[in-house]
Amino acid sequence: MKQTIAEKILSKKNIERKEVKAGDIILGKPDVILINDASGPLTFIQFRNIGAKKVADPQSVIVVLDHFSPPPSLSAAEAFKETRKFVQEYEIPNFFEIGKGGIEHTLLPEKGFIKPGSLIIGGDSHTCTYGAFNAFGTGLGSTDIAVALALGYTWFLVPESQRFKFEGRRMPFVSGKDLILRVIKDIGVDGATYQSMEFTGNGLLQFNIDEYMALCNMAVEAGAKTGIVEANENIAKWAVSKFGDLPELIKADENAEYINSIEYNLSEIDEPLVAKPHSPGNVVNISEVEGIHVDQVYIGNCANGTLTDLRQAAFVLKGRNVAKGTRLIVVPATQQIYKQAIKEGLIDIFLEAGASISTPTCGACFGGHMGLLSDGEVAIATTNRNFRGRMGSAKAEIYLANAFVAAASAVTGYITNPKKVVDWEEAKKFVYGDHNVN
Amino acid sequence: MKQTIAEKILSKKNIERKEVKAGDIILGKPDVILINDASGPLTFIQFRNIGAKKVADPQSVIVVLDHFSPPPSLSAAEAFKETRKFVQEYEIPNFFEIGKGGIEHTLLPEKGFIKPGSLIIGGDSHTCTYGAFNAFGTGLGSTDIAVALALGYTWFLVPESQRFKFEGRRMPFVSGKDLILRVIKDIGVDGATYQSMEFTGNGLLQFNIDEYMALCNMAVEAGAKTGIVEANENIAKWAVSKFGDLPELIKADENAEYINSIEYNLSEIDEPLVAKPHSPGNVVNISEVEGIHVDQVYIGNCANGTLTDLRQAAFVLKGRNVAKGTRLIVVPATQQIYKQAIKEGLIDIFLEAGASISTPTCGACFGGHMGLLSDGEVAIATTNRNFRGRMGSAKAEIYLANAFVAAASAVTGYITNPKKVVDWEEAKKFVYGDHNVN
Repeated sequence: MKQTIAEKILSKKNIERKEVKAGDIILGKPDVILINDASGPLTFIQFRNIGAKKVADPQSVIVVLDHFSPPPSLSAAEAFKETRKFVQEYEIPNFFEIGKGGIEHTLLPEKGFIKPGSLIIGGDSHTCTYGAFNAFGTGLGSTDIAVALALGYTWFLVPESQRFKFEGRRMPFVSGKDLILRVIKDIGVDGATYQSMEFTGNGLLQFNIDEYMALCNMAVEAGAKTGIVEANENIAKWAVSKFGDLPELIKADENAEYINSIEYNLSEIDEPLVAKPHSPGNVVNISEVEGIHVDQVYIGNCANGTLTDLRQAAFVLKGRNVAKGTRLIVVPATQQIYKQAIKEGLIDIFLEAGASISTPTCGACFGGHMGLLSDGEVAIATTNRNFRGRMGSAKAEIYLANAFVAAASAVTGYITNPKKVVDWEEAKKFVYGDHNVN
Repeated sequence: MKQTIAEKILSKKNIERKEVKAGDIILGKPDVILINDASGPLTFIQFRNIGAKKVADPQSVIVVLDHFSPPPSLSAAEAFKETRKFVQEYEIPNFFEIGKGGIEHTLLPEKGFIKPGSLIIGGDSHTCTYGAFNAFGTGLGSTDIAVALALGYTWFLVPESQRFKFEGRRMPFVSGKDLILRVIKDIGVDGATYQSMEFTGNGLLQFNIDEYMALCNMAVEAGAKTGIVEANENIAKWAVSKFGDLPELIKADENAEYINSIEYNLSEIDEPLVAKPHSPGNVVNISEVEGIHVDQVYIGNCANGTLTDLRQAAFVLKGRNVAKGTRLIVVPATQQIYKQAIKEGLIDIFLEAGASISTPTCGACFGGHMGLLSDGEVAIATTNRNFRGRMGSAKAEIYLANAFVAAASAVTGYITNPKKVVDWEEAKKFVYGDHNVN
């Protein structure tokens, strides 16, 4: 049977160990079940409602306090307490307290929980981020997570797949974020509903693993069940450096059945993209929105608070100040990234520029806390959703972009093409070191 | 006329330039009018209600976004917007945006706005903190601040004064915080209502300026109008290093009229103190509360997020971890302190230990955001109020202590005397350098 990446992973992870194809309904055992403080408390209620007495495989469960960390409200504090109680009651060994972890989707791979070929379910829609590591990640509702906790497995409808191939030369200041913005621009926010979006092509070698996270993170913004990068040299290198040996990597079979294939020539994605309010699919070239005043710039989230993002932003901000009338909030995704960013002098650059550096948290990305917008305000953010009201007021406007663009906009106070602030050749060296970017 | 420090400062600052004494009602021109995002919006309403058309002396006004920075809620975001609007409309030159300043009472002296002999009014009860710098600071209600904005001056009832003299040798792990806890223990939370608490004695030379802030910050917890440290060598040195030349320093006249005087022998304050729930006056020696489990440790606030506090905490945490079952939140009081703490390696120590490092904010100290407590939880904090519900749930309990104690408690997970974790002689060197501590 010729298989897509999704079919291959689900073939390995279904309980009967049979080869599966799109349309099959199977029972699969996830390698990781992710729980956070936002949906966790609902999951715990359902877990008890279905009469579950124990967690089938506590070792597979990872619990992260991130959405409201540290709690900005009584209800959040209560959710944190409920979550800790569950962890203790069911003896979950992998628990990340305030100050000990960071944002789930960046944290789990960092801590070695995600391997190529893994199956991950999580009570968070952006669980698809793990596709960056050649894994199948998907978000489920709280009840489904509760059932999976109780049984150790759950049902999956094997998704149909679309293929997105990137060839050609990477253009200046175009990052992983731009690739997915371009795809969503083309296929729409319902363009891959319940499908696996599979990313491939030699062009992707010019982007690093952090950028693969940005790419896969927003697959769900096109409605996808998951987004997965096909195994390549970058992923292999990452896996070896992480695990010591090379795990099995997943590639689609030649002639696997894709319901749609799109090939991109990277040289034609020749400037950064921006998603305008109020949809991640409302994507334009940056030149169409340059000059719009921004009240707030937010650099962070589960796929864009990586070291790569912080380096991109720091390079732009180095020796510059956040514009008067604009504020900048920077959120390193994990404690580890925060530490490394200090070591590299990035945090110093941000503080010097007049940025607020937050502790790792989902924060304002989902309108939880740490920088909400009021009526009439405009933000540019490296986050993944710009729905009406997402970061606070329903009368605010959010533009989505990569961290180069966000930082350049912080410096000028209006949406700005980073090429007008810094040089690409120098930026490349600073951000990517000896990674062959183009 | 023999005068107290309060009488001397108000004699200089009253409009008629007359010598004043306790009981006089005068009109005084403040050098600084402080506005923040918490009480500011109420002030702006009153400012308009009284028909004010302009701010009398915009140069004297300092506006700081700190309480809810960055906004955790729509109402906070709205308050921030209102504050920015006021700043713009009335052309206030000194405005500290998110990421540009920090917590008001630490920020203002850092930025050079506070001089010995200054008169400062602010829409915040802890405006008395500026007494550390031999200045008269006092918190006023929003309406009084609005009137002062409009007129450039306001009324003061010249307070009666109490005198607290510290002599003798400073004991291990006793900090500025402990001095004020001891005073409040002795005189009670209404022991100095509407009075000036004046701190003097050679013993104070063993404490640094940061510790004077902790001392004066909590004067209001005894009901005081202000708390002021009498001019001494430390203050003189600080002033010279800050302003280049030595400004006039304020000392009370010999035989000035104090309604009460207490003299402390520092060698008798021989261990750190802790204020138990639910009052800053419920003070005991640490030995009486050792062993109580703490869910949360919070190091920060307007007088105890200084470099001295961070150094105290870092020395204890160096090479150690936050205990399982406990979380630690550290909040540098200003961007400048944050930067310096990075430079000194303190932030690294905190991150390595598993602490959450927040952007400068009043945060959880007043239950605003950034680490609220839920029902039944216990915290130890370097903050100034442990009223029921102050940090979140009314069913939570808060213990107040210095940063050595807070950090030691984070390491063990229960209230701990720092001497059981670290050596005082080494701690002294790390925290105070060549300042002669005892």
